[in-house]
Amino acid sequence: MSRSINLAVIPGDGIGQEVVAQGLKVLRAVLPQDVKLETKEYDLGAGRWHRTGETLPDADLEALKGHDAILLGAIGDPSVPSGVLERGLLLKLRFAFDHYVNLRPSKLFPNTATPLAGRPDIDFVVVREGTEGPYTGNGGSLRTGTPAEVATEVSLNTAYGVERVVRDAYARAAARPRKKLTLVHKNNVLVYAGHLWKNIFDRVGQEFPEVTTDYLHVDAATIFFVTQPERFDVIVTDNLFGDILTDLAAAISGGIGLAASANINPDRAFPSMFEPVHGSAPDIAGQGKADPTATVLSVALLLRHLGLDAEAIRIEEAVAADLAGRDGSAAARTTDEIGDALAVRVAS
Amino acid sequence: MSRSINLAVIPGDGIGQEVVAQGLKVLRAVLPQDVKLETKEYDLGAGRWHRTGETLPDADLEALKGHDAILLGAIGDPSVPSGVLERGLLLKLRFAFDHYVNLRPSKLFPNTATPLAGRPDIDFVVVREGTEGPYTGNGGSLRTGTPAEVATEVSLNTAYGVERVVRDAYARAAARPRKKLTLVHKNNVLVYAGHLWKNIFDRVGQEFPEVTTDYLHVDAATIFFVTQPERFDVIVTDNLFGDILTDLAAAISGGIGLAASANINPDRAFPSMFEPVHGSAPDIAGQGKADPTATVLSVALLLRHLGLDAEAIRIEEAVAADLAGRDGSAAARTTDEIGDALAVRVAS
Ligand SMILES: CC(C)[C@H](C(=O)O)[C@@H](O)C(=O)O
Ligand SMILES: CC(C)[C@H](C(=O)O)[C@@H](O)C(=O)O
Repeated sequence: MSRSINLAVIPGDGIGQEVVAQGLKVLRAVLPQDVKLETKEYDLGAGRWHRTGETLPDADLEALKGHDAILLGAIGDPSVPSGVLERGLLLKLRFAFDHYVNLRPSKLFPNTATPLAGRPDIDFVVVREGTEGPYTGNGGSLRTGTPAEVATEVSLNTAYGVERVVRDAYARAAARPRKKLTLVHKNNVLVYAGHLWKNIFDRVGQEFPEVTTDYLHVDAATIFFVTQPERFDVIVTDNLFGDILTDLAAAISGGIGLAASANINPDRAFPSMFEPVHGSAPDIAGQGKADPTATVLSVALLLRHLGLDAEAIRIEEAVAADLAGRDGSAAARTTDEIGDALAVRVAS
Repeated sequence: MSRSINLAVIPGDGIGQEVVAQGLKVLRAVLPQDVKLETKEYDLGAGRWHRTGETLPDADLEALKGHDAILLGAIGDPSVPSGVLERGLLLKLRFAFDHYVNLRPSKLFPNTATPLAGRPDIDFVVVREGTEGPYTGNGGSLRTGTPAEVATEVSLNTAYGVERVVRDAYARAAARPRKKLTLVHKNNVLVYAGHLWKNIFDRVGQEFPEVTTDYLHVDAATIFFVTQPERFDVIVTDNLFGDILTDLAAAISGGIGLAASANINPDRAFPSMFEPVHGSAPDIAGQGKADPTATVLSVALLLRHLGLDAEAIRIEEAVAADLAGRDGSAAARTTDEIGDALAVRVAS
């Protein structure tokens, strides 16, 4: 039997190119000999948009469909009006490929930075809904630019969309030692969407009697993130709340340089996409200063999605060892050096 | 000349009654002899709803209009379906009385708890829009409770509503030593509302050349709250982002027991309302365990709104002194004892 991975690579903007190169380096180093890796790079992002005005043409979208998975660096540049690449490329991919599970694990490794005193135990995963909520682009502006302007944003939530992500989150919680799932929403204000989420959360919970459940309003959840993060195991929440909470989660658990994410289509109707949570960081792009660890950890999520669990674990252990060995007083390593170090560790 | 304050008091639910009693105690102690205080208590909240099914009848709303200001304790109880009292009472008051400036200061006093290592300098104020955004109750649910349910929440944003709160925030920033204003939104995803906010923010900024400005996406803002809170001076943001950020702000600056808020109608067309950010905390209600400091600090905001700045400062100094004198190893004081201590300090 021969195995192969046909990977699409979208380096994107800013530090995207640099971190993706390290992700691929570590991926090549960890893959068993018998697994053939084919990669195809897609030129998408600010450069392409400036040259052609295109964000994600149909031809690219079609071509991307043929891959087993997508590795993405970062999208966004100050030279492009806000929203153009986010809506036209990044979110378009998540929506077109029905990435309804946006998975974002947070773990505070020893010897890594946290702004929290006392270094609490942090080891939770946020299951962020990826295809609905306030992210659907449903809204508009009337009398734009005048004193009489009205602008709307519509959060769309369906039982179909909520139930599938809630069930996925329960299954993930059931597979973890602590078996705890927290729903985060704001059902005392956003009563229509909130009650939809809460009712489905309660109903699907009956299929998972072994999972302990909890509900928190999103505002209260941010308090517990900084005062008692150890109370969380798996969190399920909507697209926008998930966006906000996972940046905060990254900040408390080693910083945005370590936060990995997976945009998953569990039905495997479309390729899933793996990307660091951080942005394109144009201020440090091209200087070899970016930490590629978040991308490397995203590669681990990719391997797990493809069933290569042992290789995923090797990467996670390599990252843990690398972080443990980091010496605050030593000269900062370059992006490339960190990638090299991780590649050596996973190969050995 | 004789002066008087005609104050409406809504103790509300849970610890509301206890903390409001201390707020009034301190208010009475700080007021100059020549200022007459009249108070009228309104029985609104879970109890009233259980007895009569009413949340905020027109007669009460009309009567409340006649007051100079409103002091509110807390609203909400697990025995009432989520949303009923929030939408039917608390938010109804904010909307009916056009409280478009929801002011929430955060200051880390010495000797108070923060989960952040290194105790950064925290002294900022969030100007949260109070009458628009996702809080308007505009939304609905179709085929409720069925697998085909669709639920929407509409965020409504008007140039009228955004401009007035943005201008208020600039004026507040201009009056502070650091003169810095940060807009927080998510204009790379919520492009319609986001561009409305950003355009107005930029345009109104031309009237305040002395104010330094900054823009942050809400997800990134949460990171800076925990890694660099000293970068903030005044923040202006929408109703929902403001809700989330101010709970996080409270958590990092002494905890929710210290966070005060003012729901202000700057045009003075309606009475403004002052309330602690915390909820009704039914788990500790009636036990004398609640810290009334957030309510007492809300009374200081009330005094400032009524032009009694010297008295507001006396309260703030009393709170600072009380916090500085708190001894973690001493037996915890009761709600009443803290109120007494603050009343003694402001009177002397
Ligand atoms: C860049 C932006 C559109 C994106 C989001 O809001 O989802 C990012 O913040 C993220 O969390 O992946
Ligand atoms: C109780 C709730 C409706 C309210 C809000 O969301 O505004 C509260 O969280 C607050 O911040 O005052």
